[in-house]
Amino acid sequence: MTDTKPIRRIAIIGTGVIGASWAAQFLAKGLEVVATDVAPDAEKSLRHFVKAAWPALERLGLSPGASQSHLTFTGDLPTAVAGADLVQENGPERIDFKRKLYRQLDELLPADVIIASSSSGLTMSEIQSDCPLHPERCVIAHPFNPPHLVPLVEIVGGKKTSEATIQRASEFYTSLGKQTVRLRKEVPGHVANRLQAALAREVYYLVADDVVSVTDVDKALCWGPGLRWGIMGQVLLNHLGGGEGGIEHFFQQFTGPMTAWWKVLGSPQLTPEVQRKLIDGLHAEVGSRTIEELEAERDDILLGLLELRTKRPETAAQRKSPLAAAE
Amino acid sequence: MTDTKPIRRIAIIGTGVIGASWAAQFLAKGLEVVATDVAPDAEKSLRHFVKAAWPALERLGLSPGASQSHLTFTGDLPTAVAGADLVQENGPERIDFKRKLYRQLDELLPADVIIASSSSGLTMSEIQSDCPLHPERCVIAHPFNPPHLVPLVEIVGGKKTSEATIQRASEFYTSLGKQTVRLRKEVPGHVANRLQAALAREVYYLVADDVVSVTDVDKALCWGPGLRWGIMGQVLLNHLGGGEGGIEHFFQQFTGPMTAWWKVLGSPQLTPEVQRKLIDGLHAEVGSRTIEELEAERDDILLGLLELRTKRPETAAQRKSPLAAAE
Repeated sequence: MTDTKPIRRIAIIGTGVIGASWAAQFLAKGLEVVATDVAPDAEKSLRHFVKAAWPALERLGLSPGASQSHLTFTGDLPTAVAGADLVQENGPERIDFKRKLYRQLDELLPADVIIASSSSGLTMSEIQSDCPLHPERCVIAHPFNPPHLVPLVEIVGGKKTSEATIQRASEFYTSLGKQTVRLRKEVPGHVANRLQAALAREVYYLVADDVVSVTDVDKALCWGPGLRWGIMGQVLLNHLGGGEGGIEHFFQQFTGPMTAWWKVLGSPQLTPEVQRKLIDGLHAEVGSRTIEELEAERDDILLGLLELRTKRPETAAQRKSPLAAAE
Repeated sequence: MTDTKPIRRIAIIGTGVIGASWAAQFLAKGLEVVATDVAPDAEKSLRHFVKAAWPALERLGLSPGASQSHLTFTGDLPTAVAGADLVQENGPERIDFKRKLYRQLDELLPADVIIASSSSGLTMSEIQSDCPLHPERCVIAHPFNPPHLVPLVEIVGGKKTSEATIQRASEFYTSLGKQTVRLRKEVPGHVANRLQAALAREVYYLVADDVVSVTDVDKALCWGPGLRWGIMGQVLLNHLGGGEGGIEHFFQQFTGPMTAWWKVLGSPQLTPEVQRKLIDGLHAEVGSRTIEELEAERDDILLGLLELRTKRPETAAQRKSPLAAAE
């Protein structure tokens, strides 16, 4: 097995929302993509998705040679993976299905082909357990939806995954401009979905407990702390929140209030009544705006923010801040 | 008491980080500001802060007549509040101090002057309890730091606060371009600090439990879900996460996984060892970058994001999204 074989040809298994978005991402980076799915009309939906995603990918910057014409589709799994350098698997989240699929892939593919799963709900230790030949090249590479726009990819191996596979996968996704994080343990929800669940729990609680309306809890997030979470992570923000004393001063000052708030955070139940309250509140917030309009707004601002983050002039980092410490 | 008296002159009590930032905000909106503080060198620090904040405020857009020359300072509280239309109080978070101060303000000020507290740790019911004359004009107006850049203002009254005061305060801050949310109950941490505490708890847990490094948990947030939280609130994002079926479909699909993740979220203790792990990890993440450089980076991107959010062409909302449903 060589670690240095360039990854040029990607097989995509499963072309639902995640798989189709991965296909668009890989094509935009100039790679060849062969996709497979058993759903009727899968090819048509996939090509439609890629075409619709292309303007956003152009705005973010295509790699040399990037073309939608490098996408092929086949209904036959062995044909799809033949000659692939990496497989991105986005199948149903059922362990029996995945185990059987990975056993088949393990037998079909040379040892140096990475098999990467987009799974959010299963662990690689479970998935790879029936691979007879080379389970060490199987790894979780979990994107945050939609993969072609959101940079995060969470990398985590199973018990039998090799360090070389984790390294090679991390380098590959990083080379595409993705931001990879490495989990040292397999935990439910990886990192990002857990962070999202932690935040959503308190959001739902505050509505369920009649502290605020849905409109107001959404406003509080996206015009308050949310504005900073799209710029820097929590610990780095804490460092700046400590003023000149940095993170050390932050913990001296805020361990008390933080710990006190933890004690009173809510644990809502998503009963039908609570769901109804959230749903009714959401519709009051949304008014007559359609899902399409809202998606367009979200993605337009997201693209703008990514441009700010990635195309920021280097000199800006050297400019002095007009601000003092922030809580 | 008239509800319609225009608010043109603001008294700022306490010119630490929050008070100074409020002063800059009010001045940028063309208001007159009289500030008071007992700290030595308070006036010098305040004027320095306002001057340093001014370029950012210019970038966000000054109101007609806005000028740093409309700031005056006095060490004498009665002088500071004389003729004020609204008091923004940013004193120490000690209930004995605040009760005494509010009693004094209540006696000094006509009934139609709103007394707004930036307090994050105390409730207005506690603070206003000793006001003999007009406790109904006292209200919490809690900003998110730094107030001159972050739009959020949380409004919540105490037991004796009138609905008219809450309305008038909300209208006033909204007229300055702030995004106000109304709390129907007094709860510790209001909304934004609770959301922050909920997220930070899981961030710290994942580091404490050796799932990820500080660098990686920060990357996962700010290149993953954090990117969307600066654009829309959680419930609205859930609505888009449900695809064509919207929020109703989201709950059908994600109540199961969400509830399962809630069961395994962590409850870390901020022991000296855990703090040390977070501090060491933070320094590994930061490397040689100074706090000043990081602040400049944060604020530069924050200003850019606010421009994207507030100056977005109206046509963009009508463009169709290239994306399908996002989880």
